[in-house]
Amino acid sequence: LKNIDVCVLGATGIVGREYLRILSNHPYFRVRCVTGRRSVGSKLADTLDEGSDEINLPKHIGNLEILPTDPARVDADLVFSPLPTDVARKTEEEFASAGFTVVTDASPHRMDEDVPLVIPEVNPEALSLIEGQKRKRGWSGAVVATPNCTAVGIVMTLKPLADRFGVENVVGTTLQAISGAGYPGVPSFDMIDNVIPFIENEEEKVAQEANKILSAAHRIPFGITTTRVPVISGHTASLHVELARSATPEEIKEVLASFTGAPQKLRLPTAPERPIIVREEVARPQPRVDRGAGSVPGMSVVVGRVRAGMSASHVQYVVVSNNTVRGGAGGAVLTAELMVEEGIA
Amino acid sequence: LKNIDVCVLGATGIVGREYLRILSNHPYFRVRCVTGRRSVGSKLADTLDEGSDEINLPKHIGNLEILPTDPARVDADLVFSPLPTDVARKTEEEFASAGFTVVTDASPHRMDEDVPLVIPEVNPEALSLIEGQKRKRGWSGAVVATPNCTAVGIVMTLKPLADRFGVENVVGTTLQAISGAGYPGVPSFDMIDNVIPFIENEEEKVAQEANKILSAAHRIPFGITTTRVPVISGHTASLHVELARSATPEEIKEVLASFTGAPQKLRLPTAPERPIIVREEVARPQPRVDRGAGSVPGMSVVVGRVRAGMSASHVQYVVVSNNTVRGGAGGAVLTAELMVEEGIA
Amino acid sequence: LKNIDVCVLGATGIVGREYLRILSNHPYFRVRCVTGRRSVGSKLADTLDEGSDEINLPKHIGNLEILPTDPARVDADLVFSPLPTDVARKTEEEFASAGFTVVTDASPHRMDEDVPLVIPEVNPEALSLIEGQKRKRGWSGAVVATPNCTAVGIVMTLKPLADRFGVENVVGTTLQAISGAGYPGVPSFDMIDNVIPFIENEEEKVAQEANKILSAAHRIPFGITTTRVPVISGHTASLHVELARSATPEEIKEVLASFTGAPQKLRLPTAPERPIIVREEVARPQPRVDRGAGSVPGMSVVVGRVRAGMSASHVQYVVVSNNTVRGGAGGAVLTAELMVEEGIA
Amino acid sequence: LKNIDVCVLGATGIVGREYLRILSNHPYFRVRCVTGRRSVGSKLADTLDEGSDEINLPKHIGNLEILPTDPARVDADLVFSPLPTDVARKTEEEFASAGFTVVTDASPHRMDEDVPLVIPEVNPEALSLIEGQKRKRGWSGAVVATPNCTAVGIVMTLKPLADRFGVENVVGTTLQAISGAGYPGVPSFDMIDNVIPFIENEEEKVAQEANKILSAAHRIPFGITTTRVPVISGHTASLHVELARSATPEEIKEVLASFTGAPQKLRLPTAPERPIIVREEVARPQPRVDRGAGSVPGMSVVVGRVRAGMSASHVQYVVVSNNTVRGGAGGAVLTAELMVEEGIA
Repeated sequence: LKNIDVCVLGATGIVGREYLRILSNHPYFRVRCVTGRRSVGSKLADTLDEGSDEINLPKHIGNLEILPTDPARVDADLVFSPLPTDVARKTEEEFASAGFTVVTDASPHRMDEDVPLVIPEVNPEALSLIEGQKRKRGWSGAVVATPNCTAVGIVMTLKPLADRFGVENVVGTTLQAISGAGYPGVPSFDMIDNVIPFIENEEEKVAQEANKILSAAHRIPFGITTTRVPVISGHTASLHVELARSATPEEIKEVLASFTGAPQKLRLPTAPERPIIVREEVARPQPRVDRGAGSVPGMSVVVGRVRAGMSASHVQYVVVSNNTVRGGAGGAVLTAELMVEEGIA
Repeated sequence: LKNIDVCVLGATGIVGREYLRILSNHPYFRVRCVTGRRSVGSKLADTLDEGSDEINLPKHIGNLEILPTDPARVDADLVFSPLPTDVARKTEEEFASAGFTVVTDASPHRMDEDVPLVIPEVNPEALSLIEGQKRKRGWSGAVVATPNCTAVGIVMTLKPLADRFGVENVVGTTLQAISGAGYPGVPSFDMIDNVIPFIENEEEKVAQEANKILSAAHRIPFGITTTRVPVISGHTASLHVELARSATPEEIKEVLASFTGAPQKLRLPTAPERPIIVREEVARPQPRVDRGAGSVPGMSVVVGRVRAGMSASHVQYVVVSNNTVRGGAGGAVLTAELMVEEGIA
Repeated sequence: LKNIDVCVLGATGIVGREYLRILSNHPYFRVRCVTGRRSVGSKLADTLDEGSDEINLPKHIGNLEILPTDPARVDADLVFSPLPTDVARKTEEEFASAGFTVVTDASPHRMDEDVPLVIPEVNPEALSLIEGQKRKRGWSGAVVATPNCTAVGIVMTLKPLADRFGVENVVGTTLQAISGAGYPGVPSFDMIDNVIPFIENEEEKVAQEANKILSAAHRIPFGITTTRVPVISGHTASLHVELARSATPEEIKEVLASFTGAPQKLRLPTAPERPIIVREEVARPQPRVDRGAGSVPGMSVVVGRVRAGMSASHVQYVVVSNNTVRGGAGGAVLTAELMVEEGIA
Repeated sequence: LKNIDVCVLGATGIVGREYLRILSNHPYFRVRCVTGRRSVGSKLADTLDEGSDEINLPKHIGNLEILPTDPARVDADLVFSPLPTDVARKTEEEFASAGFTVVTDASPHRMDEDVPLVIPEVNPEALSLIEGQKRKRGWSGAVVATPNCTAVGIVMTLKPLADRFGVENVVGTTLQAISGAGYPGVPSFDMIDNVIPFIENEEEKVAQEANKILSAAHRIPFGITTTRVPVISGHTASLHVELARSATPEEIKEVLASFTGAPQKLRLPTAPERPIIVREEVARPQPRVDRGAGSVPGMSVVVGRVRAGMSASHVQYVVVSNNTVRGGAGGAVLTAELMVEEGIA
């Protein structure tokens, strides 16, 4: 037990709840403070009851008073930020400037050159940017970002393909869950018996973030269409990848299934045994079925339908990732665990 | 009024009902007979009431007795066949052999070399195969096929692109409606809050049928993934097309929106004014919203999100087509209308 | 053709569109003006395209400019008001005061003693209140209200039961469609794979409005629970009614199925042949299947599962009514037609 | 640890999986055998992978070979039977006759006079029927039944009301999840954007089973309508109960919330701290949100909207119960735990 005190900013939203769930019995982190926009001053447990899925919080968390999101009111070693985009940049900078290490899954800082954008299995070395960030910005704290929930499953699977075969380009379509749009998010009148073929800024983010994280020798071209489907959680992506050389489906499945990284080596508490689970059944992965997959539920991405694409150097596959766990709270907690083990936080 | 007597085989299924609806006040065709597997001997109106969406059939159709699907019992100039795959080949051949012209949206005959596979706007000339088919098979009747419901929207949009710019290859993902799986089709336990990333044989059919219909100088490579989503009707396809030369989105939209074919020239009764409707809104097309689009509801395919793909010679767009109308009964009736006007039926 | 000029207030919402659809080729009414809160000054057709289901408006309607909702800008004989609750009272009174006859499906005026609350088949005589309303309020115009979309199916079926057998009390549960909540209405995160067992003020409205419309000798007690289910349109109500005397299911079905009223007698254009359709199938009515029922689609309510309740004087049944047609635009248009025929508008 | 060996019959269905999940780390029971209709001879883990939600089975369960459902092949102290209705009676009798204690959530034996129909909190005394059952039928084993998944939430809440106030009659409507229909169950074409207002035999079962379990002085009349809604799991019931005397909502909530029974007294492993959770929020309970409620997830039923009905002696409320846990595997396991503690199994 490391007993690191953490604070969850914006703790009452969909992803905020996921942080509380994941951190409720965590061997490194203790939730010592929560903040929110509404219900400031209320007991956390009372607020969560109002809204959404029943979660059984331990009493020491449920009894926390909701604080305003203000560095002067927060006492913690590390803060997690699932803040809404419109307030995230400013608030996170205030916290970093006030000396806090901020791990964020919000978008504003992701593409800043001096901010690490991290998937712990893929690019742990990006954490070395923190030093320069502090110096350049004159902060005693720092901001570390995790990628867009849609990018995670795509990048996680591209990494071992890029390392082994080289990736020339990626064409794909996502079928994304409504929890990815926050709350209230998409009106049910638009979503029942329907598909929405557009998610604002999402296609650009996937391409940019994937290239920043993979940092290949040359920029990989992406041709992505992002859509919203009537699924509560679990983002599905259907990809068609051109490799630098031909590869059989069997080779590709082997490369994906055997992929591991720093979190597995360090046996981080939130690290799944296998970051990528490859399924052989014809009709998998499916978001409702596979969003809880893995030894740490929701932290593995699940791949299926691996097969040749339109040529022998093209591969097609479908990947499901849990957007609120691996693509949200779980990814950020895993990043913080890595920072702890590497002595950065 | 041409007063051509027609018979709808398998009239009580999902697509069968669409035939009845479309043909209920048709200027060329009169439904004089219906057949079915179950409920033989019952009055059609009684059977339809049991099952599904209320349709207001004219009395002369509702009062028809359901006959067995047997050429000896049928009296008609033309028969429409929305029969299930497992019985379609044999039954359709019995009818053709018995002298009937069979227009079918079932799959078994589609890839037969001597069977026209027709989208009236795209390849009306394929009807000329009938002559040889009759000769070769010794039939007094003939079989004419319409394509897979998923292929229709894809091929309809590729045709004008191929003609104007050339098409090098097509990568895409479909999000298909459950009505495309027939009845009972997909269990709701698999479909609520879920996506199924596989439809049997569908990807092969799309590629094969598209190439047969477009009959380009060389076979176009396809990299298609077909998925099922919780939508009642309306198939969505998200496509990334490599053209033989670069083209701007504006050029492409203009080419798509201005596309017309034989049905528009001949002013066929079921022909929509515009086979392809191009929308400019960021979040269209959507299946529930656009499946009834067009001057003949459900007969136009709707395209949106036309934009550059990963290079200047790649274009991306989303297309929604009505799988039970344009991809089912409506497409077959339009084909039959074309045959009437060309003196073939 | 009567050529009465009408204006649709708030024409761009879900129910507003239904008015446009129903009025687009109406023998009495011509849509000469539309108003809205947003997009004032735009062409109506451009605004509708943005949002929701494709409707094929005639050009003379699509080309109308959206006016502000201001009596000084409106020129019409009659105005229809599907305005949101928060603005309806004040705006409707401004129009009535300025001399317009306002037919509204908004709630604020419904329970006013001097305002007719009308289901044309049930209580056409309520229109006689208009005279006193004008006098009392000093208006040259008037307000006529139609009931809550949920009350319509319930009251329509209670009327013939009350007339023939007497109704002692009504216990029931509704399963209401999301279109009843307007737009954006219910977040999809709350509605997919879920039921919401509460709709604000709805239970009170059903009881109060039913009693006002039925105006029985004594107030009928209601024990209603209203819930929201993932259905686009079509409200389902499951009712258990105590009659003043025992009755067999056969008697009850006969009474319901043979019910007609003033609209049928006057052959009003929007009157369905049968206001109540009784189905014998075990699993009907269903909202998706029956919301378009009847000779004027959506204007009939559909009843099924008629059977004895917990005693011989209790009857149970399920009724589906179309909340945007019969419970919205269609009900209001039918009321206006009745007023025209009775020389009131 | 009691180390009682159990066998799960029909282990690969929806409810079968729930048994495996609940029993996977159980302090009393060890799963030593599983049976199935299909896939006999396969390894259990391989079969489960094919189908549905990922569950992390311990290896000693996953590695079990699927046996035929035949008493001669089974070695266990107790068998759990989530068998389909059509085979349950015969198979369960074979097992009981062969000496096994069978705890079943299938329907065929429930109404047999000598078979206990048990909700452990409500009527633990019913287990005393076993003695006579064995004698009468000449069995060395016995059959103990748990009620229909819909009846559980209704009866659990009626019990404390009956004890404290007396229950005169119950009128209600259920909104049931599709998992209650088994697999494949309801076609998605019938369920998306729809409600099905009929479930075969369900209304009769609820009334009969409730009366058997509550065994009131006189038979309570029920007026229940059962419907199916697009929800994966969690049955909702909206009830209107006439009490023998008037009671305030506050009294009723207190009586419900404080209800406990034998399982709580005996601290059985699967017993929730509170069998009935009463919520004060206006829009609760909801099936997706509350189906996992309680200290043992899914074992508590959740009540909300407690309020006066149409008179001061009528109460209305909504209850959500987890049909696959409390109304399925969990209820049966709790019953078996009770039998172990009482020395019956």
